[in-house]
Amino acid sequence: MMESKRVRELLGVDRAIIQAPMAGGITTPALVAKVSNAGGLGMIAAGSLAPDDLRSLIRETKEMTGKHFGVNLFIPRNFEVTDSDIENALRLLRPAYDAFGLEQEPVTPAAPGDIREKFDRQLDVVIEEEVPVVSFIFGVPAADPLSRLKSSGIVTLATATTAGEAADIAAAGLDAVVLQGAEAGGHRGAHPGTSEDSLIGLMSLISGSVKRVDIPVIASGGIMTGREIVSAGVLGAEGVQMGTAFLAALESGAHPLHKKILTESEDIPAVLTKLFTGRQARAVKNRFISEFGMFEDGMTAYPVQRSLTQPFQDASKRTGSPDYAMLLAGQGKQYARHMPAAELIEVLSREVSGLGYGI
Amino acid sequence: MMESKRVRELLGVDRAIIQAPMAGGITTPALVAKVSNAGGLGMIAAGSLAPDDLRSLIRETKEMTGKHFGVNLFIPRNFEVTDSDIENALRLLRPAYDAFGLEQEPVTPAAPGDIREKFDRQLDVVIEEEVPVVSFIFGVPAADPLSRLKSSGIVTLATATTAGEAADIAAAGLDAVVLQGAEAGGHRGAHPGTSEDSLIGLMSLISGSVKRVDIPVIASGGIMTGREIVSAGVLGAEGVQMGTAFLAALESGAHPLHKKILTESEDIPAVLTKLFTGRQARAVKNRFISEFGMFEDGMTAYPVQRSLTQPFQDASKRTGSPDYAMLLAGQGKQYARHMPAAELIEVLSREVSGLGYGI
Repeated sequence: MMESKRVRELLGVDRAIIQAPMAGGITTPALVAKVSNAGGLGMIAAGSLAPDDLRSLIRETKEMTGKHFGVNLFIPRNFEVTDSDIENALRLLRPAYDAFGLEQEPVTPAAPGDIREKFDRQLDVVIEEEVPVVSFIFGVPAADPLSRLKSSGIVTLATATTAGEAADIAAAGLDAVVLQGAEAGGHRGAHPGTSEDSLIGLMSLISGSVKRVDIPVIASGGIMTGREIVSAGVLGAEGVQMGTAFLAALESGAHPLHKKILTESEDIPAVLTKLFTGRQARAVKNRFISEFGMFEDGMTAYPVQRSLTQPFQDASKRTGSPDYAMLLAGQGKQYARHMPAAELIEVLSREVSGLGYGI
Repeated sequence: MMESKRVRELLGVDRAIIQAPMAGGITTPALVAKVSNAGGLGMIAAGSLAPDDLRSLIRETKEMTGKHFGVNLFIPRNFEVTDSDIENALRLLRPAYDAFGLEQEPVTPAAPGDIREKFDRQLDVVIEEEVPVVSFIFGVPAADPLSRLKSSGIVTLATATTAGEAADIAAAGLDAVVLQGAEAGGHRGAHPGTSEDSLIGLMSLISGSVKRVDIPVIASGGIMTGREIVSAGVLGAEGVQMGTAFLAALESGAHPLHKKILTESEDIPAVLTKLFTGRQARAVKNRFISEFGMFEDGMTAYPVQRSLTQPFQDASKRTGSPDYAMLLAGQGKQYARHMPAAELIEVLSREVSGLGYGI
């Protein structure tokens, strides 16, 4: 039922299992390489990394694996944040700083132009380093970067949160689409102009998308065990991308507190919030989300908001408290397994086979 | 994979397919009877029906089928709506009345006590009429009504939107739980005290619930074709409940405009709103939802809000416009099929068999 051959051939892997790119140091070279060595596709999240840092991560990864792996890039988007927006947000966030006795430092917001420039340099790096697979989130890449990647023989993927976005990705000529169900942890990958109405459950998203695109669709959001893999395959997905499941892996760079809370919070939901980064993301509900939720409209845009919350996020983790930390997670978090990434891929493959399928 | 035997035996049906109860005249006796005659379980939505009207519907249904069918009851909840709340909401809603040249009539809100009383009488009716299956939404039924139903040999179900709610339903002694994924159309069945954070995608909801309850779980939300049925079965669901799919059926009492828009609005999302009834429900996004969304906090509680919006909802349908109508639908709406209910059950069964399963 899981027709994964097209995806396996496209990505050059044995298993149509992609380890989702997770920014903030989670997708370490060790995690990426172990996933690729085990037959899946490891992915480095470039996020806001300096191009040279991205290059170092790619080279470290290459030292640990000769197999295919990928890099994910954030498509830059315009934003406007004034000094008074920052002042206002910092005023609202003051109690979170106070909780750890932190001073508020002046913040100079990154300029949209600088972020675009960084994106262009990240793109140069993945091309120069001949990274086999590049995926995009937050939109459809423009014709120019896309043709540069394609002419370098790089396989391209992009994330969609609606069937319409999937159709746009197929029309732009990408090789496959990663469908992000509403269940997914981390940032929502909605395209510019797509409103937050676009929270489609993975089941409906797969069914709706396979009707509209001919390129392979890869399912993500809440996929944690062999059952969800087969379930997605029945609906027409040709591969899966798993974030929270790999976040819990031994080699992931997630803070131990973060890994631990996944399985210790069965009755605590993973909810959507813009508080941490200025962009909608799903995270384990904690004190910060509960107490500051009412101030969401007073916060700044991505990526400025991230700088405003980083100090107390870090302090929270440092002091061993989940209260003010950004604990990104999908809705299947209780099924996280704390094991080496290679073992997880083996277990998943066995679970899928046990259900009479292949992946 | 779909282990539907327990559900088929419990409900006394040939197919573990429940036609979801849909209030507002959608679940006509013809629809309910045809579904049951075709081997599924038809369900009458009691909603706010007067007990005598409910009795008439049950009797009409019995005339058309000798098979098992069910009735769904809304568990009453306390609410407080003052005259000034109503005045305020009507003021905000004025442009919707004006769009059809309607006058605003004085509204006398139903008292919570009267609604409780009506619920008790509805319960008397289903027991007196020996309805084989009774399902509940908006909470866990209290011990007393539950034991009355059980001692009358009536099979009981209740809706859960989280694994925790499913566990509460199992602990209370109900026979099975209907899991309502975030994808579902119509009212959210969240229990009192469960916040709106509880929008769990069906895939994660099934996986999370089967881990915690031993009674059969029945999946609902976005299930439109055999693929979603098998997909839910792989995750551990033992049956399915389908609303939007049957709303489109020929025998459903939904307005033709409502049936038509399901398949003609592929790029228009079905979104959550409290505007129509005062309770969160998923409906096709239209002009009313877009233009009045910002006033949601100024609206009244369920069920008062329904009386305030009914006049222009009716006028909108009467004039053939979707703009101000409540067009409830789930996220799989584009897969709706306009055919007789019996044929739909046949088609679904064939699709499931075609995938190598049974239902």
